[in-house]
Amino acid sequence: MSQLVHIAVDAMGGDDAPGIVLDGCAISSVRHPNARFLLFGDAAKIQPHLNRHKGLEKVCEIHHTPDAIPMDAKPAQAVRQGRKSSMAMAITSVKVKRAQAIVSAGSTGALMAISKIRLRTFPGVARPAIAAIFPTQRGETLVLDAGANVDTDIKQLVDFAILGEGFAHVVLNRERPTVGLLNVGSEDVKGNEVVKAVDALLRASELPMEYVGYIEGDDIAAGAVDVVVTDGFTGNIALKAAEGTAKMVAHYLRSALTSSPLAKLGALLASGGLKILKERMDPRKSNGGVFLGLNGLVVKSHGGTDGLGYAAALDLAIDLAGSDFGSHITAALEKVKDKVDAADEALKAAKVEKKTPKPEDKVTP
Amino acid sequence: MSQLVHIAVDAMGGDDAPGIVLDGCAISSVRHPNARFLLFGDAAKIQPHLNRHKGLEKVCEIHHTPDAIPMDAKPAQAVRQGRKSSMAMAITSVKVKRAQAIVSAGSTGALMAISKIRLRTFPGVARPAIAAIFPTQRGETLVLDAGANVDTDIKQLVDFAILGEGFAHVVLNRERPTVGLLNVGSEDVKGNEVVKAVDALLRASELPMEYVGYIEGDDIAAGAVDVVVTDGFTGNIALKAAEGTAKMVAHYLRSALTSSPLAKLGALLASGGLKILKERMDPRKSNGGVFLGLNGLVVKSHGGTDGLGYAAALDLAIDLAGSDFGSHITAALEKVKDKVDAADEALKAAKVEKKTPKPEDKVTP
Repeated sequence: MSQLVHIAVDAMGGDDAPGIVLDGCAISSVRHPNARFLLFGDAAKIQPHLNRHKGLEKVCEIHHTPDAIPMDAKPAQAVRQGRKSSMAMAITSVKVKRAQAIVSAGSTGALMAISKIRLRTFPGVARPAIAAIFPTQRGETLVLDAGANVDTDIKQLVDFAILGEGFAHVVLNRERPTVGLLNVGSEDVKGNEVVKAVDALLRASELPMEYVGYIEGDDIAAGAVDVVVTDGFTGNIALKAAEGTAKMVAHYLRSALTSSPLAKLGALLASGGLKILKERMDPRKSNGGVFLGLNGLVVKSHGGTDGLGYAAALDLAIDLAGSDFGSHITAALEKVKDKVDAADEALKAAKVEKKTPKPEDKVTP
Repeated sequence: MSQLVHIAVDAMGGDDAPGIVLDGCAISSVRHPNARFLLFGDAAKIQPHLNRHKGLEKVCEIHHTPDAIPMDAKPAQAVRQGRKSSMAMAITSVKVKRAQAIVSAGSTGALMAISKIRLRTFPGVARPAIAAIFPTQRGETLVLDAGANVDTDIKQLVDFAILGEGFAHVVLNRERPTVGLLNVGSEDVKGNEVVKAVDALLRASELPMEYVGYIEGDDIAAGAVDVVVTDGFTGNIALKAAEGTAKMVAHYLRSALTSSPLAKLGALLASGGLKILKERMDPRKSNGGVFLGLNGLVVKSHGGTDGLGYAAALDLAIDLAGSDFGSHITAALEKVKDKVDAADEALKAAKVEKKTPKPEDKVTP
């Protein structure tokens, strides 16, 4: 039997917690007999769900916590009032090395805020990012940042490229991951100044990645690269725009296949093929965003998921827990540090100069 | 017969021009007997295609131009070298009121650059935007800016809301269009400072629109609002991410429906329903972005479209040409002008203060 992996689980996070959490543990434990789940939350509420799954108790450990953070909690409020919450206690178990990763389907904002405070940012990383794994025509692509930061500078985007490369190398098993920088298409407005500076830096960086340069929005689903780098504002909106479109097509497909008795019969005959399509597009299969850039592994599951989706988030955490990309990332961060700092300073100086009237302008006649 | 509408057509713009351009004119002229097409381009190349369509000559007028702008021309180069090009001469015909709108499938950057110079920005508008019409679960939604501007300030986003509202009112026939401001979802990072300031302004503006506040990426395809307001960087990437996803689903659907003989038979029986789906998702049906905020109507067709797609762009131009939202927009721009200017100044001052070391800091011991 392979080495045991301990996963801290916020049993109270998620719309239908703790039921779906325990369902997820049951599914994941079959696939990973070496996984042990540390369940943080209200013991009285967890126990009945634990009892529903035969044999699950053997791989679980309940850690009673008196509080839980509501799904709609504001991050600042969660930090202040949630010290004894299932989420905070689960994160702490990673900090004190009792668990190798933590999974929660609770509020994203609260999870990020508490993780930042308890785990701290990885040395050399400016800010953690949310990395989303996205299904594409050619497999899976990592997109980051998916919404942790809305104002992004050069240093952050370069960090994201390094964090994404490390993840794709270790988790997606890509020898030399391809990395693209998200940009607009039309020639006259090719990128804002931050994006241009990051492009120049990554080209010259000699990092252990295949940097392909700019990519456009439609390259995400086409699977053009392993890692898509962008700021959290654009990344969040692009991913949700894609999700919305997939839902729209599914909606139209359903109405097309029920539009006539003949269409219904056809759909019945094609049901095997359609099932494959449905499985491929099932958002539960790639459920789980990862917070990268912290001293500890944090996996965020969708709040509205079910047991199958929660199991996917647990599987991801178990995969990650077995790996260590810390030293890989440290070397890369060190390699570009001086250049990134210089580029950030230059851009900030240029902006201040543009916006501040020069003092000498006033005295010149 | 209703009043004649004159449309200037850049006959040389597009991957397969002038063939697809004339195909488009033929299709559109049947739907709009009152349309007249002013074809700008190489007469020797246009004439044979004109001859292919019986009766088309009666509603067309060839205006020979010696030059054409290449599809991959840089905007600055197109402006300098394209003075006698089909694109520039077609735009000029709108400026001198010979035509009421111009359609081109040429380079977006060149078309925007030349349009800005020849037509000038509409009084009170900071910068023109590209407005894209997007299919949704509930009909059509206007998204702007789709890529004309990458660095966006408060004034521009408020302008986009006003321009979009006018368009939805006049072209999409919405009595009081709903308008949403694109933002990220997670609570802790709700929007950058520009987005927050625009939200406050639109809430307090009393403009003739139903401003619903923030919307997220998945609300675009859901058809949550008539008009989606965002900056050109985010807008371009969100629209392309959505396009890419639709293509990916279509790709998987095709492989699902050919995965077995039974699936193939089912697809054959359901072909009527699947045809409806295909038509609904056909990008040619909503082909045509509109440049809003200029003294003249400019419609951009996709470069790689065919006759059917080009006809959709012509139809849109004809619809627009019959309308006049100039005065509508002028009133709205005037209404918010002072507030917008004040908000922009305040934000810029705050940024400069944050980035410039205060002189007194140096002398304080």
